[in-house]
Amino acid sequence: MAFNDADQLAINTVRLLAVDATYACSSGHPGAPMGLAPVAHVLFNRFLNFNPKNPNWLNRDRFVLSNGHGCMLQYALLHIYGYAVSMDDIKSFRKLGSILPGHPEAHDTPGVEVTTGPLGQGVANAVGLAMAQAHTAARFNKPQFNLLGNLICVYDDNHISIDGDINCAFTEDVGKRYEAYGWQVIIVEDGDSDLNAISAAFQEAQNVKDKPSLIKLRTTIGYGSIKQGTHGVHGSPLQAADIKQLKEKFGFDPDRTFDIPQEVYDLCGKRSSHGAALEERWNTLVTGYAEKHPVEHAELMRRMAGDLPNDWEKNLPVYTPSDPPEATRKLSEAVLERLESVVPDLFGGSADLTPSNLTRWKTAVDFQADITGLGDYSGRYVRYGVREHAMGGIMNGLAAYGTVLPYAGTFLNFVSYAAGAIRLSALSQSRVLWVATHDSIGLGEDGPTHQPIETLSHFRSMPNTMVWRPADGNETSAAYYVALTSKHTPSILAFSRQQLPQLEGSTYEKAIKGGYTLREVDGADITLVSTGSEVSLCVEAAKHLQKHHDLRARIVSMPCLEAFDSQDLEYRLSVLPHGIPSLSVEVMSTTGWARYTHEQFGLDRFGASGPAKELYEKFEFTPEGISKRAVAVVEAWKTVTNLPSAIRRAF
Amino acid sequence: MAFNDADQLAINTVRLLAVDATYACSSGHPGAPMGLAPVAHVLFNRFLNFNPKNPNWLNRDRFVLSNGHGCMLQYALLHIYGYAVSMDDIKSFRKLGSILPGHPEAHDTPGVEVTTGPLGQGVANAVGLAMAQAHTAARFNKPQFNLLGNLICVYDDNHISIDGDINCAFTEDVGKRYEAYGWQVIIVEDGDSDLNAISAAFQEAQNVKDKPSLIKLRTTIGYGSIKQGTHGVHGSPLQAADIKQLKEKFGFDPDRTFDIPQEVYDLCGKRSSHGAALEERWNTLVTGYAEKHPVEHAELMRRMAGDLPNDWEKNLPVYTPSDPPEATRKLSEAVLERLESVVPDLFGGSADLTPSNLTRWKTAVDFQADITGLGDYSGRYVRYGVREHAMGGIMNGLAAYGTVLPYAGTFLNFVSYAAGAIRLSALSQSRVLWVATHDSIGLGEDGPTHQPIETLSHFRSMPNTMVWRPADGNETSAAYYVALTSKHTPSILAFSRQQLPQLEGSTYEKAIKGGYTLREVDGADITLVSTGSEVSLCVEAAKHLQKHHDLRARIVSMPCLEAFDSQDLEYRLSVLPHGIPSLSVEVMSTTGWARYTHEQFGLDRFGASGPAKELYEKFEFTPEGISKRAVAVVEAWKTVTNLPSAIRRAF
Repeated sequence: MAFNDADQLAINTVRLLAVDATYACSSGHPGAPMGLAPVAHVLFNRFLNFNPKNPNWLNRDRFVLSNGHGCMLQYALLHIYGYAVSMDDIKSFRKLGSILPGHPEAHDTPGVEVTTGPLGQGVANAVGLAMAQAHTAARFNKPQFNLLGNLICVYDDNHISIDGDINCAFTEDVGKRYEAYGWQVIIVEDGDSDLNAISAAFQEAQNVKDKPSLIKLRTTIGYGSIKQGTHGVHGSPLQAADIKQLKEKFGFDPDRTFDIPQEVYDLCGKRSSHGAALEERWNTLVTGYAEKHPVEHAELMRRMAGDLPNDWEKNLPVYTPSDPPEATRKLSEAVLERLESVVPDLFGGSADLTPSNLTRWKTAVDFQADITGLGDYSGRYVRYGVREHAMGGIMNGLAAYGTVLPYAGTFLNFVSYAAGAIRLSALSQSRVLWVATHDSIGLGEDGPTHQPIETLSHFRSMPNTMVWRPADGNETSAAYYVALTSKHTPSILAFSRQQLPQLEGSTYEKAIKGGYTLREVDGADITLVSTGSEVSLCVEAAKHLQKHHDLRARIVSMPCLEAFDSQDLEYRLSVLPHGIPSLSVEVMSTTGWARYTHEQFGLDRFGASGPAKELYEKFEFTPEGISKRAVAVVEAWKTVTNLPSAIRRAF
Repeated sequence: MAFNDADQLAINTVRLLAVDATYACSSGHPGAPMGLAPVAHVLFNRFLNFNPKNPNWLNRDRFVLSNGHGCMLQYALLHIYGYAVSMDDIKSFRKLGSILPGHPEAHDTPGVEVTTGPLGQGVANAVGLAMAQAHTAARFNKPQFNLLGNLICVYDDNHISIDGDINCAFTEDVGKRYEAYGWQVIIVEDGDSDLNAISAAFQEAQNVKDKPSLIKLRTTIGYGSIKQGTHGVHGSPLQAADIKQLKEKFGFDPDRTFDIPQEVYDLCGKRSSHGAALEERWNTLVTGYAEKHPVEHAELMRRMAGDLPNDWEKNLPVYTPSDPPEATRKLSEAVLERLESVVPDLFGGSADLTPSNLTRWKTAVDFQADITGLGDYSGRYVRYGVREHAMGGIMNGLAAYGTVLPYAGTFLNFVSYAAGAIRLSALSQSRVLWVATHDSIGLGEDGPTHQPIETLSHFRSMPNTMVWRPADGNETSAAYYVALTSKHTPSILAFSRQQLPQLEGSTYEKAIKGGYTLREVDGADITLVSTGSEVSLCVEAAKHLQKHHDLRARIVSMPCLEAFDSQDLEYRLSVLPHGIPSLSVEVMSTTGWARYTHEQFGLDRFGASGPAKELYEKFEFTPEGISKRAVAVVEAWKTVTNLPSAIRRAF
């Protein structure tokens, strides 16, 4: 269908909405929306299938705005097409309490699929969404019941960076680079006004089924502004005089703001109605699917609700002290082996460390295109390669799709490479699991370049992020239980490379509280608080203290500070009571522990290269080394009366 | 000069040294050294200029082993060519106390230029080294006194990843991708045995002066092993039987280990002597340079010593409370404006945020190739583009070269993207400065995606890393002073977007201690401890407490915890004395503060999108909000007798 004046009007309306909204809040980014309005109009009005009345319709096409600072483009479209984004919302852009924040946040705004703004995330998010769709199709499609996936990426080639012309920092041939990745590359020379070329590009991209497409779209940032084509229109509102000439140029009344002609609502409303009709048809399809394939249908609905199968947790391994010592990474593998068939939503992978992370169950099929001969789209294991950051972004996309439960492995020390992506998991409340093995100097010979010191405190201080460091098999099961049942929180599960004993007194029920008393004693002189591989050392230290110093030590295992914080005060004080000095023991940065214990024994320096056992001895993480410090703690605190528990807060 | 049996013998000797060394410590990575021995031999024996007797010779060629796990390749070469790496050192590979750790560490091993192992760093390090060389040449070369730069990258195309054949995770055309970046790409089909082709490739690369070169070298990982060409030879030693057949195959005595034929020492020694002679010649050149250009010579020597010009610090701005309020990012700009001419080693940049970070002084020239017309190699400002991680890796390379002092800017929240690179700055003791602006919710409307919460605690818990958050102009000068004079430590300088007053009682001399008493009072009821934009709020809170609650508050400004920790205990206790409850006030994660204060007021959640002032009110970071909490703290702690300062440690 040809484009006409109504299309141009809709495009200019979006441009002016971005201009008025940024002007009204005296901040924001008008340039990108002004440059991208044409491609966005063609995409939303002619290609994208969506139903504004139900932003969560499973079979919708998904739109990711990778350059999140251009969010007024998306917000304007959401409003015009009839999502639950009112004109008052548009006017509240970037104001406190608005559902339209300065950069798009998935859980704030209906119609926003993923949280963007921090750059280098959106493409990976979109890849994850496309993977989830391909997998869901492979898993649930049946003859006459089809769902299909595809990935089209639009590259806004506006030649502008904040520092000026892109040539100052970026001279690569982007099209050639994506061809090198094996993508289809389509070039549109005039993205400002050649709607037919844009439309043809999307058509061509849709026809390519065997690879993703990049549409390299030449645009003018801030199109129409006096400063168009410069970084002057990127990050601050246009001047009043500029806005005036712009509205006149576009045939709008310069004295009116937030002006949306009825015919624009009408034009866009038609597309929305089309989407609603498509969902109607799809719902009929699903009803038929439910009749013919009730089991699959029930599972699909369960997944979309974010629930897990009934009694799934009964499959979590349980251990007794008589069970053999094991590395927690091996115990993690045992959990995955047990769960993969019970929780078919599990969608795993590793950043090229599968044999070390032990993240792949024996019968796993790789997620690969059939033609590779390496797997198929029904597969649930991804070979991410050495790409922690992209892996994090892809998992956010997988989680956002809503039918799979992503987890992936790397060494704990290299989770930091994905810090930017994990922060968005936390902010967008994505259930994503990181299997982070080789969690301390206990990894040994690989040395300081691979030995985490600051990693746990980094992620413990990140809001809405759970960090687990289990000490044995029961705690490993507990870590998976809480991580999988926390629908809106990413988790980092830190596992040891080295063997650890199954602890006397550890149970899955106690461990899910995040912290618990492993060993209680009457008239205790000190509480030893520890995690992971150091807990069993504290058990030995307690014996040593009793024998050589006549001191009685309580032992607390604290696999997850965040889970412990969520328990009521009474319980927390029963674990870390008033009146008894406490000492934390963790073979990495002590940062953060002082909110739980009066004294801290840790490793506030880089490690060393050598056998694990020798490293523990070098840094005195031995029963003797712990005891020596415990004695000093008891001595130092005995003069203090009414000693409050370190978790006591004044407010 | 043609290659003969001696060359092949040297190659196989290196292969077997890697095999024996990994076998001896029962860990490590033999495969890469075995596959890369030929190219390494050609490079070291025919192209690379170095003097093992002086690994720090300025005009040497620099070798970066990006795949640091292959370090036995480099260690073997360092030994054979006569660096201070003995056979006993080789035998101690990966053992505790060895100068040959599991991955290369610059400060541990003579001849190792940069610390590698964590992947995705080496190429950026090499780019930084090449940039530093080009800049130093442009700055110091004179007619008849020439120094020259070039960058050649060898891509080990061995088709293997830990997860198996590279096709499982990596199908891109690497050569085409580097061509898209504008590199010269040279392909060597047989990197296992075609020494002439390898030599020709280096020759061709050296002849290309206007762009870097990538030599795509097809090799066989673990060449010679029964398991050659599989990931089985990557990360663990070969089996005894395999080693036996390998030594026989290479004509070595299978019963001997660490076997180095004298003719190999002789062949390699020749190259080392050649390098020594080159340095001799260069030293003569430098002597002549010193006579003709004494000023430049003195400066070059000063830079290589890591020293700063005499009295440079006298140029740091000094402020009084009567000076106007200013954003600390502006105050940072003022420091750079003052220092750029006094400290010509300063080599700045930004990740495409120059107008926001204010990192570029007015008269700066960009570091660019002349042909771009955008600058030249004498320029000292880099347009890094939106590449925080690469920027961090490049700065590590710049610092490693030894003649420039790198700093660069981005938003504090996005420093996390470079976490992997900054960790290596800290581990390799590189003096690198991050100008991290927009340091809190005070950035306002850009919202939670851009507002740091966990960033400071992350880097405060990283060993050998200094984090500064100045409250005003004098503290900003102090931050730069300590960061620039700490020769072996990277620093992150957090600056505000919003204006802050010049504080009564702040001086440069006090601030360089990292923490100091800004306001002392007799019979204080509480100590308020704060940083950056919250310090002036605490000053107001103290007035409020006096007026409305008859409580007296001491105020401590703590711009850098690490600098404060390095002061003697007596001083630290004078700042945070026993017997007085303390409250930290910082508008981000409270993690870490409990080691300094009894109670913490912070923001342990994500921020919000809105004007800065409204955000501070929403989260109660106001004089009233602080006072309310201070009152609760005084109340909660009055029952505790002999209250020790929170910095008191039992051990």
